[in-house]
Amino acid sequence: MNLPPETLFLDDANSALVILDQSLLPTEVKYIHLTALEQVYNAIKELKVRGAPAIGVAAAMGLYIHMKGFFRPDETDAATFMAEMERASVYLASSRPTAVNLRWALQKMIHAVKSCKAGGASELLNKLRKSCEQIKTDDIEANKQIGKYGAALLKPGMGILTHCNAGALATAGYGTALAPIYTAHENGMLLRVYADETRPVLQGARLTAFELQHAGVDVTLICDNMAATVMANGWVDAVFVGCDRVAANGDTANKVGTHGVAILAKRFGIPFYVCAPLSTIDKDTPAGADIVIEERDPAEVTEMFYAQRMAPEGIKVFNPSFDVTPAELITAFITEKDILYPPF
Amino acid sequence: MNLPPETLFLDDANSALVILDQSLLPTEVKYIHLTALEQVYNAIKELKVRGAPAIGVAAAMGLYIHMKGFFRPDETDAATFMAEMERASVYLASSRPTAVNLRWALQKMIHAVKSCKAGGASELLNKLRKSCEQIKTDDIEANKQIGKYGAALLKPGMGILTHCNAGALATAGYGTALAPIYTAHENGMLLRVYADETRPVLQGARLTAFELQHAGVDVTLICDNMAATVMANGWVDAVFVGCDRVAANGDTANKVGTHGVAILAKRFGIPFYVCAPLSTIDKDTPAGADIVIEERDPAEVTEMFYAQRMAPEGIKVFNPSFDVTPAELITAFITEKDILYPPF
Repeated sequence: MNLPPETLFLDDANSALVILDQSLLPTEVKYIHLTALEQVYNAIKELKVRGAPAIGVAAAMGLYIHMKGFFRPDETDAATFMAEMERASVYLASSRPTAVNLRWALQKMIHAVKSCKAGGASELLNKLRKSCEQIKTDDIEANKQIGKYGAALLKPGMGILTHCNAGALATAGYGTALAPIYTAHENGMLLRVYADETRPVLQGARLTAFELQHAGVDVTLICDNMAATVMANGWVDAVFVGCDRVAANGDTANKVGTHGVAILAKRFGIPFYVCAPLSTIDKDTPAGADIVIEERDPAEVTEMFYAQRMAPEGIKVFNPSFDVTPAELITAFITEKDILYPPF
Repeated sequence: MNLPPETLFLDDANSALVILDQSLLPTEVKYIHLTALEQVYNAIKELKVRGAPAIGVAAAMGLYIHMKGFFRPDETDAATFMAEMERASVYLASSRPTAVNLRWALQKMIHAVKSCKAGGASELLNKLRKSCEQIKTDDIEANKQIGKYGAALLKPGMGILTHCNAGALATAGYGTALAPIYTAHENGMLLRVYADETRPVLQGARLTAFELQHAGVDVTLICDNMAATVMANGWVDAVFVGCDRVAANGDTANKVGTHGVAILAKRFGIPFYVCAPLSTIDKDTPAGADIVIEERDPAEVTEMFYAQRMAPEGIKVFNPSFDVTPAELITAFITEKDILYPPF
């Protein structure tokens, strides 16, 4: 099976975080080298790297690259190192507010350094490098576990609907919502996948359709408003989505449109599965109403993807990037540890 | 109140049907003169004129223009005239399969001529001209009645969500789903309207947003997948949509996405109103499953509106143009005669 080009990796020799520029897909496969903290911040903010797990890894690696540049062998002491790392971490965490993995990964990096009692800044830097590589390795491993658990729910010939991109491109590799599909596909199971295009930035059309097609999975692209039609036609047996943050009560923030898909699934009696590593569960957020929902540039709606304007000048736009799906609409969470059924 | 530029009119002196080319809105306001039957057929098929009531009027006027060109004063007898009219009518009716108004208007034209017992082809032609003008006048009158009935359901400050364009541009003037909003607006009532952009052809972004903004109505454009969000936020008090065909049991065909909006509305306890002239009710179609749903060019999904490709080459697409909303999800039909509550 062909997974898509690698989402991101560390080029330590050149002190760079290398990311696949996802804003150019599917028409262009181009890697960009990020060497400055601001470049990492902007790449996350501008969706060049996106997907909750992937931006966690990007932030961790970006933090390491920044600290590597900051570190001067005979000058930087541990306290200075720590202070700069905390400053840079707060800055990177502010690039996108909704996904909890971003803050989780940065916290993990800080924790690794803090637990490293002995040694000077040089050891701390070394610890950071190992930590960010470990976060990436762990993410891929978690995805494969999610794939194993989720694939057990699938039967040959089933139709799966997914929203946005929670595939290999949204993670360090292999994906969350797409992991069960990849695992089933690797086991020779034929499935049909319906990919919501996911306006306004079209992650479904540009990324999910791209990576499933690349892997040889039978995928059909639909506009978001056609989900009810494919469900009413009896073509969908399960919905798999990823998520950006799960509140303590199970309310789940994910790409805008997920809430609507969950309502449709309930109406048609179709199970609705959220696929996520446990790092996406935020026990500090009691409920969905407590999750900050990012609002993005109205131009994403009015100016079609690098194209001519398609709405009148001056029109008001409401352009939230995510929505919150109430826990009661979610059949189960599929994590790398188990499938969690309600009550959560 | 400024209604948008006129949808279509007869230029009898130049033997032309003149239509506003809606495929160019909102960036360009351009009228095109249609003088040949094939031009009318293509204008309907290519959505240069669209909206169930508007294509009914366009077909009726197009039929008249064609017969005017066909008619030779001292040569054409009534039987030849009738035969050609029936042939041309079958051809025009095949331009789009779903909307019943198209066939209804053509039937009305044929009926008018058949009821005109005395006289030769010259009288028949004259009858056709009067009939197509009457269909247009009647449509505007029906819309204003729909506006009156629908506005009675509205209160100041309400939020209304609409899908696709069922406005002045979808009719001979004034609209169906937007008619209650225009009537309320003319009476000085402030409302907030949420317009679904309506992928893939973006009638909501290009037409509804355009005409409501033109009229000075407070309108906010959203992507289709954001409807659940604005409803969950408590911003929507009613949904108003138009329709292309109502089956005898109340099942309603309208732009794809309508079914999903109805499910969302039910979930949030928001009334869901279908606004339509009685000509849209098709007693010959027992239920929604009997309505032929047009599938359109996959390029509408993969090639963004005159822009660069945004999905991979060779990707499969499911691109139905309409869906069917079960009767049980519809709170009421608002017609020019009354508001019809279930059972229909």
